[in-house]
Amino acid sequence: MPRLWNETIEEHRRAVRDTVLETTAALVAEQGLRAVTMSRIAEQSGIGRATLYKYFPDIESIMVAWHERQIGAHLDQLAELRDQAGTPGERLEAVLEAYAFIQQQRHGHGGEFSALLHRGDHVVHAEQHLRQFIRGLLAEGVQAGEVRDDVAPDELTSFCLHALAGAGTLTSKAAVKRLVAVTLSGLRPQS
Amino acid sequence: MPRLWNETIEEHRRAVRDTVLETTAALVAEQGLRAVTMSRIAEQSGIGRATLYKYFPDIESIMVAWHERQIGAHLDQLAELRDQAGTPGERLEAVLEAYAFIQQQRHGHGGEFSALLHRGDHVVHAEQHLRQFIRGLLAEGVQAGEVRDDVAPDELTSFCLHALAGAGTLTSKAAVKRLVAVTLSGLRPQS
Repeated sequence: MPRLWNETIEEHRRAVRDTVLETTAALVAEQGLRAVTMSRIAEQSGIGRATLYKYFPDIESIMVAWHERQIGAHLDQLAELRDQAGTPGERLEAVLEAYAFIQQQRHGHGGEFSALLHRGDHVVHAEQHLRQFIRGLLAEGVQAGEVRDDVAPDELTSFCLHALAGAGTLTSKAAVKRLVAVTLSGLRPQS
Repeated sequence: MPRLWNETIEEHRRAVRDTVLETTAALVAEQGLRAVTMSRIAEQSGIGRATLYKYFPDIESIMVAWHERQIGAHLDQLAELRDQAGTPGERLEAVLEAYAFIQQQRHGHGGEFSALLHRGDHVVHAEQHLRQFIRGLLAEGVQAGEVRDDVAPDELTSFCLHALAGAGTLTSKAAVKRLVAVTLSGLRPQS
């Protein structure tokens, strides 16, 4: 049976969208937000300007869509690590380390428009999701006796996220790993 | 011997300046940065507008001066705690707790203009000073065997400052104390 016309259209739209997102992100990273124009994006993506405007009204909306996709990919990556084999403590360590590396990369590029992007609703939503996610892992760790139980998982979540945000200023992988180790020491049951 | 004329002038100037700073900070906290005018500041400070303009060209410069004074007072407070009696670990704890409470208060008010103020050179300078200060305490702690020696004091300083920035989102004193306890656990020598 031939593929349905709608599916083909849908797939085509997704492909155009993805191309636009990647082209724009690359142009912005290379030339800065202010230097990039919709015409340049259309040209580099290999689509007409009129078509581009059917997908996105402006560069900001493209960057927000790109950012949403990035955040989604990061959350998927963390969820995969959470669902691996291992004790809660081991899985917590894997997730926090991956999160710290994401923070490090995030600050490496895109400083210029990160303030703009981080004001969006999609970010608030993703942050809530991330908090719940980490809190769940911490609560599992408490039950397994691998995480301290004298401070609520909610407060420990805040501690983790703030401490690991510091990875944004670190330049080496080794330093990020040390930061994760120090943060985990803060989470362990205290004698 | 009568007081020198210059000293009297100097004292008078400082008094006017202090009054302007306090009046402006109170007005901004009450009504928001946009609602406050130089005329209103002059009126509330009990000085003429022309006099006010001899001291400060605009509200932003008053707020920066106020912020500089605040930061100076906070650094003095932390230095006092550092110079108290006690082991390096005890003094570190006192300093980090006071720092966390300062972070908590700071976020309580002034959100509107904090972004503006935090871009200033005086803040960069104060942050460098604070970092050196905390790093010194941590290095003392390492020597006394009260702070871990497997991570450089410089990296531990970053960890502390990022982790304790989380106090800005906490509403109770007890929660701030718990955050300080968790942060200190991360700093202790690991077995």
